[in-house]
Amino acid sequence: MASALDYAQQKYPDFVEELKALLRIPSISTDSDYKKEMLHGAEWIADHCRSLGFQRVEIFQTPGHPIVYAEWLGAGDAPTVLTYGHYDVQPTGDESEWISPAFEPTERDGNLYARGAVDDKGQIFMHLKAFESIMQATSTFPVNLKLVIEGEEEIGSMNFPAFMKSHLDLLKADVVMISDTGFQAPGVPTICYGLRGIMVFEIEIFGPARELHSGSYGGTVHNPIKALVELLDAMHDVNGHIAIPGFYDDVRELGAAERVLFEKAGYTEAMWYEETGAPQPWGEAEFTIAERIGVRPTVEFNGIIGGYTGQGSKSVIPPKALGKLTCRLVPDQQPEKIKEVIRAFVAQNTPPTVRSEVRFIQGIADPVVVTLDSPAMKTAIKAYEEVFKSEVVFVRGGGSIGVVSDFQKLLGLDSVMMGFGLPDDNIHAPNEKFSLEQFRLGIETLIRFYQMLPANA
Amino acid sequence: MASALDYAQQKYPDFVEELKALLRIPSISTDSDYKKEMLHGAEWIADHCRSLGFQRVEIFQTPGHPIVYAEWLGAGDAPTVLTYGHYDVQPTGDESEWISPAFEPTERDGNLYARGAVDDKGQIFMHLKAFESIMQATSTFPVNLKLVIEGEEEIGSMNFPAFMKSHLDLLKADVVMISDTGFQAPGVPTICYGLRGIMVFEIEIFGPARELHSGSYGGTVHNPIKALVELLDAMHDVNGHIAIPGFYDDVRELGAAERVLFEKAGYTEAMWYEETGAPQPWGEAEFTIAERIGVRPTVEFNGIIGGYTGQGSKSVIPPKALGKLTCRLVPDQQPEKIKEVIRAFVAQNTPPTVRSEVRFIQGIADPVVVTLDSPAMKTAIKAYEEVFKSEVVFVRGGGSIGVVSDFQKLLGLDSVMMGFGLPDDNIHAPNEKFSLEQFRLGIETLIRFYQMLPANA
Repeated sequence: MASALDYAQQKYPDFVEELKALLRIPSISTDSDYKKEMLHGAEWIADHCRSLGFQRVEIFQTPGHPIVYAEWLGAGDAPTVLTYGHYDVQPTGDESEWISPAFEPTERDGNLYARGAVDDKGQIFMHLKAFESIMQATSTFPVNLKLVIEGEEEIGSMNFPAFMKSHLDLLKADVVMISDTGFQAPGVPTICYGLRGIMVFEIEIFGPARELHSGSYGGTVHNPIKALVELLDAMHDVNGHIAIPGFYDDVRELGAAERVLFEKAGYTEAMWYEETGAPQPWGEAEFTIAERIGVRPTVEFNGIIGGYTGQGSKSVIPPKALGKLTCRLVPDQQPEKIKEVIRAFVAQNTPPTVRSEVRFIQGIADPVVVTLDSPAMKTAIKAYEEVFKSEVVFVRGGGSIGVVSDFQKLLGLDSVMMGFGLPDDNIHAPNEKFSLEQFRLGIETLIRFYQMLPANA
Repeated sequence: MASALDYAQQKYPDFVEELKALLRIPSISTDSDYKKEMLHGAEWIADHCRSLGFQRVEIFQTPGHPIVYAEWLGAGDAPTVLTYGHYDVQPTGDESEWISPAFEPTERDGNLYARGAVDDKGQIFMHLKAFESIMQATSTFPVNLKLVIEGEEEIGSMNFPAFMKSHLDLLKADVVMISDTGFQAPGVPTICYGLRGIMVFEIEIFGPARELHSGSYGGTVHNPIKALVELLDAMHDVNGHIAIPGFYDDVRELGAAERVLFEKAGYTEAMWYEETGAPQPWGEAEFTIAERIGVRPTVEFNGIIGGYTGQGSKSVIPPKALGKLTCRLVPDQQPEKIKEVIRAFVAQNTPPTVRSEVRFIQGIADPVVVTLDSPAMKTAIKAYEEVFKSEVVFVRGGGSIGVVSDFQKLLGLDSVMMGFGLPDDNIHAPNEKFSLEQFRLGIETLIRFYQMLPANA
């Protein structure tokens, strides 16, 4: 085992430079202007896998962005691990807020700054480097490895389930491994055993046929911004509960056993203040912060726009206003049922003075919880604890990785979510980064995981 | 009298071409990028006035945009008319919504389309052409005329009161004439005898220190968009009344006599539907539509922006959200008092989970009502009725022309607001236009007004 770790340690500077090359590719999946860069990203990874000694490397086209598949199946009866990741990234957001440009990876204070550094290029790259290290040191690999790296995770993985359905044999495995989550705090290795689902939609309100002078008509026209404000405000009560009838119907209650796990994980208000920089916590008072994130659903306003938003003023009543929303869902909520609940709420709360439209857009994921009681999970815990010398904590994450429930439903496989991000990594925000120490120790952890798994299985 | 009218009729095609030249100058006062074009606009008008025979033409610099002054004082004891207008225009808004470009004046279906066509370049230009016609036909002018054309009306005329105060002698007159309003309906000459005031401000809500992932933190952070929505929604009750404590304190009640005037003016719901294209009227049910516009104050949401507003989705909690608002005020509301009322309301309605800022910006105007009982008013009515063969109606306009109350307060002069716009002129919106028939008949009306005034005075 020592030699693979030695190899990784020795080659670490090269690993960082290689990762930078991957991070330079602006593979933004949500923006159709970046279609070529998406293809470039897929090809770069496929070429890299070929150079590492995978036996078969293939790019599968989809109606959207391509999927990279790579396999090494020389381990005979040893377990087969299906390692999943994604090479697509979020848009940069306001580029002026980036200290160094989003697609010019820059090292600063022990971190590597770039869009996708931790979500998820840096994390999937650790698996490639673990594979390389073991192969170079031992000329073989302890398990059968199937890598599948898609390009639509940030926009809802909408073509991935169909790909799974039509490649059930190809993807057959004993366990799914995903590194797309993070540590609860520095030094605290964290296994995520549940994820919220997500449902994405827009509400647009239409009022007058054209922009009107707010002097000439103000007081007689239901301003679409105002109508949108009324509708959005009706979605919560004053205590932060969602006031949309039917929304909570299928929410699973938090049991005593899990409450203990949450408490043991030890997420504190101090951590929350540090991470968010917000004036004060908000939300459902009868749940702790970690519980609000892990087991409670949300209706979140991700964006709003209407009327004049430039410099100075323009006294208009605009013809329309738009809200962009997401719901985070928890077991046993069903996205399709929540869609109906939202549709009915908007219809019922649209007065005759305006017209409304609800548009559901790409990005559905089911909520999911995975077992904590599997050989792969036990191996993951051991590998973490050997490297980080600290007890693993178990959390339910607030984010969404749609494929985790798809792996359950379509392949019958639970996922081990072994992530290496840190709370201050700014995922989806300007100045995303990956701690280079986490990157280095993550590769070491994954080498140990792959090497120990056969004995535990 | 006939010969001035003949001259105007004959030269009308030239008048239109000259107006187009003025409309080609993008004199947008709110945007500092257009400072040069503003100066160009002022110089164009000054040069044109010089060519028409004004005895004195001068451009007065201000801390903002310059003011054009022109005078002809050869009428001895005849009344002195101070004619006011503005050469600045609103921004274009979304240029893709303009059928022909905003600053390429285009004739279509008997209208002249361009930003500023009716507000106010086209209307002030009618006075220049009335002056030209009378001067060319009679080599003299029936009254002493002082033209003052400013460049900051669309941004609140903030330097005009100081100019008035320091030029009280220069601006001394018997009456102020303003053409910056419109007909209630085609064929219905309309005198506006009251205007709402205006107060412009922004509310910005600050939450987390940076953009957060709405999965990782959703349910624990008071989303600034949500906090803004709550604050804005609290500003009205469900019946469209303003719910800000103290806001209505000084609102003058609508008396029976004025109610009759409003009724006589005959503004109908059908007109409102035609003009707005909105699904249904909104607002205070105990007032008619014309009353809501003329005598009731508003809090209007002119713009809102926060979070991700691009294509696709981005599941973020933004660090801030911004609302752009205006209040329209009515007698006897005082903008300064309303500022205090707003400030207190925002402070009281900002929960400890976010921080708020209120910023009052340029654009204050007092509400005003002028007398209907003056020689100039009677002359205006007569001129209108001779040309349009229809009884004049009297309305209180919902818009704001700050200088009207300044003329009252600083010069002791009431204004005669004799406008020629039409309800579908799209002022402040894309595809602003001026009916060429209104332009032609407006010049005729103003020729008659200036020629009849001495006999009525």
